[in-house]
Amino acid sequence: MKELNPHVSVDCVVFGYDSDKLKVLLVERQGTKASPSKYKLPGDLVYEDEDLDEAVARVMKTLTGLKDIFFKQFKVFGSPDRIRLQPDDLEWLQQTSKLPIKRVVTVAYYSLVYLNHRLHSKIIPGASWHDVYHLPRLAFDHTSIVKEGLKTLRREIRHEPIEFELLPSRFTLRELQNLYEILFQRSLDSRNFRKKMYSLGYLVPLKEKEKNVAHKPAQYFRFDIKKYQEAKQKNFRYSF
Amino acid sequence: MKELNPHVSVDCVVFGYDSDKLKVLLVERQGTKASPSKYKLPGDLVYEDEDLDEAVARVMKTLTGLKDIFFKQFKVFGSPDRIRLQPDDLEWLQQTSKLPIKRVVTVAYYSLVYLNHRLHSKIIPGASWHDVYHLPRLAFDHTSIVKEGLKTLRREIRHEPIEFELLPSRFTLRELQNLYEILFQRSLDSRNFRKKMYSLGYLVPLKEKEKNVAHKPAQYFRFDIKKYQEAKQKNFRYSF
Repeated sequence: MKELNPHVSVDCVVFGYDSDKLKVLLVERQGTKASPSKYKLPGDLVYEDEDLDEAVARVMKTLTGLKDIFFKQFKVFGSPDRIRLQPDDLEWLQQTSKLPIKRVVTVAYYSLVYLNHRLHSKIIPGASWHDVYHLPRLAFDHTSIVKEGLKTLRREIRHEPIEFELLPSRFTLRELQNLYEILFQRSLDSRNFRKKMYSLGYLVPLKEKEKNVAHKPAQYFRFDIKKYQEAKQKNFRYSF
Repeated sequence: MKELNPHVSVDCVVFGYDSDKLKVLLVERQGTKASPSKYKLPGDLVYEDEDLDEAVARVMKTLTGLKDIFFKQFKVFGSPDRIRLQPDDLEWLQQTSKLPIKRVVTVAYYSLVYLNHRLHSKIIPGASWHDVYHLPRLAFDHTSIVKEGLKTLRREIRHEPIEFELLPSRFTLRELQNLYEILFQRSLDSRNFRKKMYSLGYLVPLKEKEKNVAHKPAQYFRFDIKKYQEAKQKNFRYSF
């Protein structure tokens, strides 16, 4: 019989971008009574014999239906009162886990996916995508975890080209600009944006163009990881 | 009566640089019998009502004597068998904590200090500095934690000027170069190094020079955080 550890959990902020909105995957709390915080992040206590990354993979599969997606540990949330911030949180935890619970330290992960129709259809009932800028009230400290996840995403994009995880394999510069505008919540000048992007040297133009669009068809690009790594090496401030 | 949580701990990799070697602060295991792994990282289980950062501060003060030093969470180590890797680890943990222990998830921090005489004299008996490249055998998975800490330090230095935490407030370019050579374990060409450092724009030359040295006295520099931030903003790949 597998035993859950009532002190340690994992929670995952799954960011999904659908060419229009940056979304977060939430799950409905299954419980005996209605709660003011119906939604939470996909997460669970960890089994005694389970590694943390294994726990995230299990949680993602069972609570959301998603599997084989990229995820990364970003921060531990361990405030002693994080499960007592709202009146029914602790009660719910004890009821669903059937364990005496005093405190839970949670290891937070984030995940990035391009939200296409295939991915939409894979998620299971009880899981749903929500605009990151208009989230409902969340259980526990999950609102803080999402906020910290978004801060981490914005910071790490400065150093690693993780934004391409949020895009299809080929994209137009307009689509890339949209993503930055939504992610950083500011509008960008298109001409400067294009100039900067061309100069980076790791966006490769493809022969294909958009089809069936009302405006002038735009060219598709792809992200070239090898060229990115060359550019990165060259620009490293300590590349003597 | 304060109660320890037997499932969650903190451990801290304190890197200290003394202008010659990169060192790590270790503490001796206090126990009833001799162990093949005499040394461990400063760390402890967390009290039920204690925040994680508070726990690190407490551990540092009580086990090493250091207080008010910078530290930063970098990774959680949660493998189910991490406290059973060596024969007497689990036994020692149960004896010293007087708690039944099945598994401990540890939140790892790193800390950076310039190791001057004042700091040397502050550490308490049982704590000692060891060359990071010649560490003794460590308890639990602490060797892995140090390795991962060093990897993190090398990675984060690419993005943030944290190396200046390891130096005195004024330093010569030779001293800076020594630090990189020790940190990245490779020798650097002095002329290229100087050229690159001048071009960064955030190292400010001071009027003072070295005194009482056998060679030609070198000029002192200081790190200018404001100039660094300006340079960073300008070089950000998405500064449209």
